[in-house]
Amino acid sequence: MTDQFLHDLLGRMTTDEKVAQLMQLATPFFKGASNSGEITGPMVNMNVTDETVENTGSVLGAWGAKEIKAIQERHLQENRLGIPLLMMADVIHGYRTIFPVPLAIGSSWDLELAEKSAQIAAKEAAVSGIHVTFAPMVDLVRDPRWGRVMESTGEDPYLNGEFARVQVEGFQGDDLKNNTDALASCVKHFAAYGAAEGGRDYNTVNMSERDLREYYLPAYKAALEAGSEMVMTAFNTVDGIPATANKTLMRDLLREEWGFDGVLISDWGAVKELIPHGVATNEKEAAEKAIKAGLDIEMMTTTYASHLKELIEEGKVEASLLDEAVLRVLELKQKLGLFENPYRGADEEREKEVIRCEEHRQTAQDLAAKSAVLLKNDRVLPLKKEQKIALIGPFAEGNDILGPWSFLGSTDDAITVKVGIEQKLNKEVIAAKGSDIETGEDADLQEAIKLAGEAEVVVLALGEASEMSGEAGSRTTIQLPAPQLKLVEEIVKLGKPTVAVLFNGRPLDLHGVIDKTDAVLEAWFPGTEGGAAIADLLYGEVNPSGKLTMSFPDNVGQVPVYYNHFNTGRPKGAPDAQIRYVSQYLDSPNAPMFPFGYGLSYTTYAYDQFSLSSETLKKGETLTAQVNVTNTGKVAGEEIVQLYIQDKVGEVVRPLKELKGFEKIHLEPGETKTVQFTITEEQLRYHHADLSYTSDPGEFVVYVGPNSAEVEAQSFELE
Amino acid sequence: MTDQFLHDLLGRMTTDEKVAQLMQLATPFFKGASNSGEITGPMVNMNVTDETVENTGSVLGAWGAKEIKAIQERHLQENRLGIPLLMMADVIHGYRTIFPVPLAIGSSWDLELAEKSAQIAAKEAAVSGIHVTFAPMVDLVRDPRWGRVMESTGEDPYLNGEFARVQVEGFQGDDLKNNTDALASCVKHFAAYGAAEGGRDYNTVNMSERDLREYYLPAYKAALEAGSEMVMTAFNTVDGIPATANKTLMRDLLREEWGFDGVLISDWGAVKELIPHGVATNEKEAAEKAIKAGLDIEMMTTTYASHLKELIEEGKVEASLLDEAVLRVLELKQKLGLFENPYRGADEEREKEVIRCEEHRQTAQDLAAKSAVLLKNDRVLPLKKEQKIALIGPFAEGNDILGPWSFLGSTDDAITVKVGIEQKLNKEVIAAKGSDIETGEDADLQEAIKLAGEAEVVVLALGEASEMSGEAGSRTTIQLPAPQLKLVEEIVKLGKPTVAVLFNGRPLDLHGVIDKTDAVLEAWFPGTEGGAAIADLLYGEVNPSGKLTMSFPDNVGQVPVYYNHFNTGRPKGAPDAQIRYVSQYLDSPNAPMFPFGYGLSYTTYAYDQFSLSSETLKKGETLTAQVNVTNTGKVAGEEIVQLYIQDKVGEVVRPLKELKGFEKIHLEPGETKTVQFTITEEQLRYHHADLSYTSDPGEFVVYVGPNSAEVEAQSFELE
Repeated sequence: MTDQFLHDLLGRMTTDEKVAQLMQLATPFFKGASNSGEITGPMVNMNVTDETVENTGSVLGAWGAKEIKAIQERHLQENRLGIPLLMMADVIHGYRTIFPVPLAIGSSWDLELAEKSAQIAAKEAAVSGIHVTFAPMVDLVRDPRWGRVMESTGEDPYLNGEFARVQVEGFQGDDLKNNTDALASCVKHFAAYGAAEGGRDYNTVNMSERDLREYYLPAYKAALEAGSEMVMTAFNTVDGIPATANKTLMRDLLREEWGFDGVLISDWGAVKELIPHGVATNEKEAAEKAIKAGLDIEMMTTTYASHLKELIEEGKVEASLLDEAVLRVLELKQKLGLFENPYRGADEEREKEVIRCEEHRQTAQDLAAKSAVLLKNDRVLPLKKEQKIALIGPFAEGNDILGPWSFLGSTDDAITVKVGIEQKLNKEVIAAKGSDIETGEDADLQEAIKLAGEAEVVVLALGEASEMSGEAGSRTTIQLPAPQLKLVEEIVKLGKPTVAVLFNGRPLDLHGVIDKTDAVLEAWFPGTEGGAAIADLLYGEVNPSGKLTMSFPDNVGQVPVYYNHFNTGRPKGAPDAQIRYVSQYLDSPNAPMFPFGYGLSYTTYAYDQFSLSSETLKKGETLTAQVNVTNTGKVAGEEIVQLYIQDKVGEVVRPLKELKGFEKIHLEPGETKTVQFTITEEQLRYHHADLSYTSDPGEFVVYVGPNSAEVEAQSFELE
Repeated sequence: MTDQFLHDLLGRMTTDEKVAQLMQLATPFFKGASNSGEITGPMVNMNVTDETVENTGSVLGAWGAKEIKAIQERHLQENRLGIPLLMMADVIHGYRTIFPVPLAIGSSWDLELAEKSAQIAAKEAAVSGIHVTFAPMVDLVRDPRWGRVMESTGEDPYLNGEFARVQVEGFQGDDLKNNTDALASCVKHFAAYGAAEGGRDYNTVNMSERDLREYYLPAYKAALEAGSEMVMTAFNTVDGIPATANKTLMRDLLREEWGFDGVLISDWGAVKELIPHGVATNEKEAAEKAIKAGLDIEMMTTTYASHLKELIEEGKVEASLLDEAVLRVLELKQKLGLFENPYRGADEEREKEVIRCEEHRQTAQDLAAKSAVLLKNDRVLPLKKEQKIALIGPFAEGNDILGPWSFLGSTDDAITVKVGIEQKLNKEVIAAKGSDIETGEDADLQEAIKLAGEAEVVVLALGEASEMSGEAGSRTTIQLPAPQLKLVEEIVKLGKPTVAVLFNGRPLDLHGVIDKTDAVLEAWFPGTEGGAAIADLLYGEVNPSGKLTMSFPDNVGQVPVYYNHFNTGRPKGAPDAQIRYVSQYLDSPNAPMFPFGYGLSYTTYAYDQFSLSSETLKKGETLTAQVNVTNTGKVAGEEIVQLYIQDKVGEVVRPLKELKGFEKIHLEPGETKTVQFTITEEQLRYHHADLSYTSDPGEFVVYVGPNSAEVEAQSFELE
């Protein structure tokens, strides 16, 4: 099929048909859906006619080969030109086999496994009939109050860019048309959604364009360079203009400057939200602003459907804008092969084979194990199988471990901690919840104390419910709920060795846990195979190797706290610093409780012989940083070796450290490996005051170490 | 004296002499100072020669006519050209008669009294020999973690601008040369120092230029329009460039665009701090960046003195930049009449008459009374003189009530709450501290409980020590310290009517106080006459009338919280809002505990017949908003009637409300006054995406009410 085909098709479309291609409706609108297209609830007020539904371009949130095929079939019967529907859905960290939440995947620093998880998610979704996933979410996040931090890989632009790339590659593969196990990827949320003020979801975002380009945009760009077919706009404003009506972001930056020619879609209802934002008086104005700014598909509101034709007739919107947008949607359908094969991967037989197959579940278990971060271990982990264990806490037998954004995941499939440990030990273990997640009863607490008293070691399975993070899951308190802190307090009074395993979607203030227990394993929301992975870790069959990609604050009053901050003019701890007049809090450290890159292992690693191949670097040449890393402990392990660079003097202030490379290495006990990093002038570029992206000659410091705080330094000069 | 005089003088100066005019050193460097110019401590390392001191242009922090005259006399003996020194000092909220802290003064909404307080501060300082005060501080503040919020008048650009204006007028009068009771004013800190990230002092500031212009710059501009002779640069970066080296801010905006031709001075040590900021490699580069960016006087570092001459000789800095800066300093000296009268107002005899004279103290007492904000009153206030009172808490007899930035104020002069009440009652009252400010002993607590048990009413005098706010006084916890919360908890168990009076420099999270006591009076740091003012308020001789100019958050996790925020696309509480998917916290309200503009009285006011004179407004014409306010209670009072406007639809998102006017009215019981506000098109202008400052036709909502949350609304159309 050729471009000519699409142009001919476009030429045969009426304006109404074109406009409807830009509308995206949820499943219930469609005949063939399990509810046979019966619209209820708030959707009734959308005033969508049968004719509009027949012409609609895409569907949101249809699941399962059977239903999707039925919807497509009915649609093709009724659509005048036989244009197939695009099926889009939120396949975020797995489809039915649920992987750890993205913030956990980030903590694995394992690009290969992250790519494989995206591939698996795509395959399960594709055989279920889905064409596009609204992923990856690559928003840079610095505020743990925001519930959607669980959906990002963290606070670093470079690392987020790497994960963006492998996720897009994993979802899309390299041949969307012929590989029907792949999905088109829609990177989100463009732009800077993660910087919501006060960590309150949907709240305003404000920063300078330089900061936006330097820190927030790189991961979106990485996703586009990896070929992401679509981009979703953010709910928030960017410098006063909602992203969904932001011409500077969409037409000037994304289309013109970056050359993106894929499809731009709004987030749910975001076009109509231009009205409460206060930049459009009514739906018609909202439609006009969005199409002019460059938005192609409107998700779940109908301002385009209701007003675009009229706007064109009135000469307020050029017809060419509509044609361009429709053509992009048709092109995506063509890329996915939908004109030849409108059902694409949808296959009820393959669904049964593929979904939650052994390989997928094993990968989810591996990734859950590699995502967990050991935060503390005072010689209590790994556990010994002969120890009598008591499993206490709301997550001991709780199955709310999939995390937000796992629509098709079923908690019934989840391997709980108790099940994981029992499978490992091949026997029953005693367990008591002690409290619920947010509330507690004394009887439960007393039972837990009693059971714990009978054990040799206590594992406390604690955390946040999945709905405490995720979209609209913002919180001002980032400690565990009080009943769980009370549970910790009472259990540790028993004097037993006590391990806390944490289930949560955000960095937490761990006062009351870290200081009371002997070991803390951050398991995040580990996905369906979580309990099995945790059992592997607790019993030492897998050695913890995850490292945080978002700082754990000391307390919420310190937020935002992130590793790549600036020195200020009065840095705390400088040799000539005054006692009071330095940049600090009177009642809190500046440093987080656990820094970016932090994570322990059951073995220890020594870094030595850190050297640079030269004291100078010239443009076009390279420099090699090299360090020997030795496993100085008694068990094999994987270490994530991190490279940071500091530009000592910039035209604008530069971060104290910026991640520029990392390598994950396997080391047997006593084994030493030499890790090399190549440093180029390109890595030293940054956005200057005039937004030019260049490097400055001068001194740079290279840091190598096991995390962003414990590093060794060497300097070189860029000539 | 003419400009010619100054040009001739400049022509006779050597480069060294010129450079030294741009240096500001603290008192200890100068012969004639009480320590006779003996330099100790870190100042030894500044490598200042006797010759440099002899040529220095200005002195920082000299106090008292005697010493200042001695310094000036010795200086004129040794300075080759007889150029007098400028004497500059931090006269912030009073000199020896200490007024409430600026955040409290803001709460008075009393521009007349604020101006008078500046006038008095200037007079006391001027007779003590000072020429320039580093005030007003007009930084917009939204983060109570930042310790310097006490030094600002709050979170509103318009109100801050009004206070900026009257403070400058109060300090400077209208004839600096002949009115030797006046001081030149130095507005600070340019720019946006109040937006330090995380509320951590000196931390980075980042926002778009549009936000900077719309919210942060107006108050500085108001100070300059009122004629402020000087501007101090901020410690922070503005879009990546420290304010002290920020050419865009200083030359492009301040000098070119705003036409400011006065003197620009750095904050303490800020030029050298360009090195730790990471924008200068060494002191020489720091000097080069600062002078090129437009900075005239370098405070307390010596990069100009050490390197400017060399930079000029090397052709790196044009000699004309030096000449311009020096000329501006000389011009200020000329404006102050120092060439004719180098001792200016310094007068040891007048010092005795003027300082802390009855009129000054009475004004301080009046302003303290008008600054206090009644936050809660469940029928317990005003107290009756016949009630047996127990005065409990660290501020019962504590004299740390002057607040930060009151160098010459003496806590020995402070009228404590106990003294104030005893003077009022003409008898002794029982008092016990109960706890110290940050620590508590059980014996003190027990004593307090015992004494409170013997009383009919308990007044709890609680708060933060002055060093818990002010410069470098940032905190992550904004509740009262735990021992004081414990004290409240124990005292209220007695079941006595209990009033809390609070002494503090920042908005506090008042959980544990507001919910436990019957009345709460926010007294701030009220200054030397504080106790007398509080006695007036507690016993109803003055009816509380202050209203908050900075929101009191519900909790620190909600920060920043401010009234003039945006609606977002998913506002909480909208008629069609979903339950979860709105901009909110799961565990906290969005609203502050007390909103901007809030404050109670011993009487009540009714607002009615709110009307607009027209439903439309044309450019060049005016609209009148009018409302009747009636005192519906039994005592006379002052009400601060507030006018807010909302631009319903903007090119960029616009705040839900913006303060555009206020009027403070006195009402006898039963009296009604009609308050009128004139609305013009100018008030409706804002910075668009292209930074143009214009208004948009369309709907505007006018709100009138007693605070920013309780309002009535009327709409008009701008044509």
